[in-house]
Amino acid sequence: MKRRSLFTLAAALPAFPLLGSLGACATVPDPKVASPAEPIGTGDLGVVIERARGTLAIVDTTQRRVLAEVPGLGDLSHASVVFSRDGRFAYVFGRDGGLTQVNLLTQRIVARVMQAGNAIGGAISADGTLVAAQNYTPGGVKVFDARTLALVADIPAWYGPGSEDSPERRAAPSSGESTLGGAGAAGDGGLKRSRVVGLVDLPGRRFAFSLFDADAIWIADLSQDPTRPQLTQLPGIGRQPYDALVTPDGRHYIAGLFGEDGLALVDLWEPQPRVRRILNGYGRGQQPLPVYKMPHLRGWAVAGRHAYLPAIGRHEVLVVDTSTWQEVGRIPVAGQPVFVIARPDGRQVWVNFAVPDYHRVQVIDTPSQRVIDTLEPGKAVLHLEFSPRGEQVWISCRDDQRVVVYDTQRRAPLATLALDAPSGIFFTARAARMGF
Amino acid sequence: MKRRSLFTLAAALPAFPLLGSLGACATVPDPKVASPAEPIGTGDLGVVIERARGTLAIVDTTQRRVLAEVPGLGDLSHASVVFSRDGRFAYVFGRDGGLTQVNLLTQRIVARVMQAGNAIGGAISADGTLVAAQNYTPGGVKVFDARTLALVADIPAWYGPGSEDSPERRAAPSSGESTLGGAGAAGDGGLKRSRVVGLVDLPGRRFAFSLFDADAIWIADLSQDPTRPQLTQLPGIGRQPYDALVTPDGRHYIAGLFGEDGLALVDLWEPQPRVRRILNGYGRGQQPLPVYKMPHLRGWAVAGRHAYLPAIGRHEVLVVDTSTWQEVGRIPVAGQPVFVIARPDGRQVWVNFAVPDYHRVQVIDTPSQRVIDTLEPGKAVLHLEFSPRGEQVWISCRDDQRVVVYDTQRRAPLATLALDAPSGIFFTARAARMGF
Repeated sequence: MKRRSLFTLAAALPAFPLLGSLGACATVPDPKVASPAEPIGTGDLGVVIERARGTLAIVDTTQRRVLAEVPGLGDLSHASVVFSRDGRFAYVFGRDGGLTQVNLLTQRIVARVMQAGNAIGGAISADGTLVAAQNYTPGGVKVFDARTLALVADIPAWYGPGSEDSPERRAAPSSGESTLGGAGAAGDGGLKRSRVVGLVDLPGRRFAFSLFDADAIWIADLSQDPTRPQLTQLPGIGRQPYDALVTPDGRHYIAGLFGEDGLALVDLWEPQPRVRRILNGYGRGQQPLPVYKMPHLRGWAVAGRHAYLPAIGRHEVLVVDTSTWQEVGRIPVAGQPVFVIARPDGRQVWVNFAVPDYHRVQVIDTPSQRVIDTLEPGKAVLHLEFSPRGEQVWISCRDDQRVVVYDTQRRAPLATLALDAPSGIFFTARAARMGF
Repeated sequence: MKRRSLFTLAAALPAFPLLGSLGACATVPDPKVASPAEPIGTGDLGVVIERARGTLAIVDTTQRRVLAEVPGLGDLSHASVVFSRDGRFAYVFGRDGGLTQVNLLTQRIVARVMQAGNAIGGAISADGTLVAAQNYTPGGVKVFDARTLALVADIPAWYGPGSEDSPERRAAPSSGESTLGGAGAAGDGGLKRSRVVGLVDLPGRRFAFSLFDADAIWIADLSQDPTRPQLTQLPGIGRQPYDALVTPDGRHYIAGLFGEDGLALVDLWEPQPRVRRILNGYGRGQQPLPVYKMPHLRGWAVAGRHAYLPAIGRHEVLVVDTSTWQEVGRIPVAGQPVFVIARPDGRQVWVNFAVPDYHRVQVIDTPSQRVIDTLEPGKAVLHLEFSPRGEQVWISCRDDQRVVVYDTQRRAPLATLALDAPSGIFFTARAARMGF
């Protein structure tokens, strides 16, 4: 099953900025796609990041196997992926600022741009027309046409002296202006670009995101004219928002705060959205343990009336009531949680952990709020992804060079796929969900 | 845009039981699919039932147009559709008992069986391997292999004198036994087959359904051996269950009762599921108005903590708290509601009506629980379907021979598609959801 040897040519693609059709090679012919007379559906496809070699593995969740590998995606050490609404294209956000559009059916790179020097993920608008990237270097958000990867809008996320008085500076319409300076490069008047985290899509061609350096949450509305984003700025949310999520209904945006013992919440359904602090004093401030890895909030679980979320640095999952946003319980777990993800039906919540406990995965039964199973799928579990109806979950074990697929009911392995240093796993059903 | 004229050959397919590959003709070549070098994704595909001529229109929700029409599906006067997990196949349940598998990419009928004399819809298992049909004539449920439409299990739904003592009679493994007698044809010992309604998929290769004639809810578990369903029978739920739904999390199964002023609820997460009566005395029993059309419960809306449901015979939508299952409000609407469907984010609920008010659609804003818009998309509005992220809704206007697509935010039409007597609209994203 080792597939690595197929790719000695490791396609080092030319860099920055590349637009248009690039033909990265596909893999060996596959019986499932060999005949043009038998086209395949995209509903059961997905991708796995092979982070060490900049390669995307295309997988099929029905047959539970690798269909192809597409190399040439650059530095994928903190990569994330969104999908076009037809399920045909994956948009891969690389750590090095590369944004790559891959056709899952032809198994080729269609377009690729180096859009920043250091990036941290992205989102796609609800109507599928706009892809947005959140950047560290330089800071800000860039918005691209999903068909062509042409730049549509640049939102530099300025902050600094006087920035509160000059909101017009913060959004620049698409122009020839170079936006690829250094991290936080000073703009005119001493303003800097903030690093951006927690970027999510909202209904109606809008995006929300958090400014790590500016302690703010911004909402960008591109529904009228995508080249001129209308910004709503919510400052003073608390120190160092490091990641965020939107609830599955698109209503609540929640940013985790690295510099505070609490989180920031915005009810996006309010006519004038404002920030509320929640879960103050949950224990982040006690810092009883060093933080080995920042948890991912995008993986927070909302199951029924409760949100399950990783307590930073603690061996606990917090249980929060989503009507009051009060903590209603804590569940002891085997390590510092990283991803805390609900099975789509909310009956189970699966958790993985930071080093040194990252060979384990635990399963929480939500009605009883107890850990009912501890699995050891392999070394260095980095991510997990449920099939859309939850009957299977795929778990990446980076240091064992494999992805293990479990039946979630019996918690027994169904398949093992050999992949090179697998990290993030993303299925096309994300295209149909908000906040993914 | 009229496409009817293309199909004078109206493919009257041979009947009962047909297995294997039938080549019903596809429509004119389409630029989107003409080139095998440019395969298309299935995530943005859907189908519209053209009920009067037994034809399925394949549509694309990105370009908002008809890609092809597939005739030869028999009587589609109360048809419903489920999708394979890859989004490639639609399974169409016809009123005449026909079950037809259509490949959306080749735009052809792949297999077709006449599985009953009078049928009322179906479901697909969470893992996509089993398709189940609910039947009126003869009663019961039949389960098919999703790949081949070969019969896997027959669940006749016996009821009558002594039936409570002989549960083994109620499930028959797949065998040569003919199950195509008349409606409620007497089995041995005077037992009859009940008409079955409210069939839904549950996690783990299970199905739940209601027995209209036997006042019962049954749960069939096919996870061990699909040919030998394990049945859990819940009798005495109240008179004449006429339709049912499962909540989006797969936890609560709710059957509407035509013969009672209330509904039957089962919490499927309980170790020993049992039936509870809810909403007793909501007004069904007052019968202040003749019932022009039975509402569809599958269309019930669960948005946030509330379920919105049609009050039978009344010009009202009931609002129910899903933790207590108590009524917490009523919203006056323009007629007898038929479908009451939440936009996927739950921010809006859209309602259509029985004759004589079936030229209108109303939009409820859920935070304020008020009607905020009344649209008149055309004559005889029969169904509506949201795109998976809710930015658009498709509305079928049977007597105006068209489907109108609206932007749900601005409530302005985006497109109009000419179709022959359109009724049900179904998008492939249903494959990723429970209870659809």
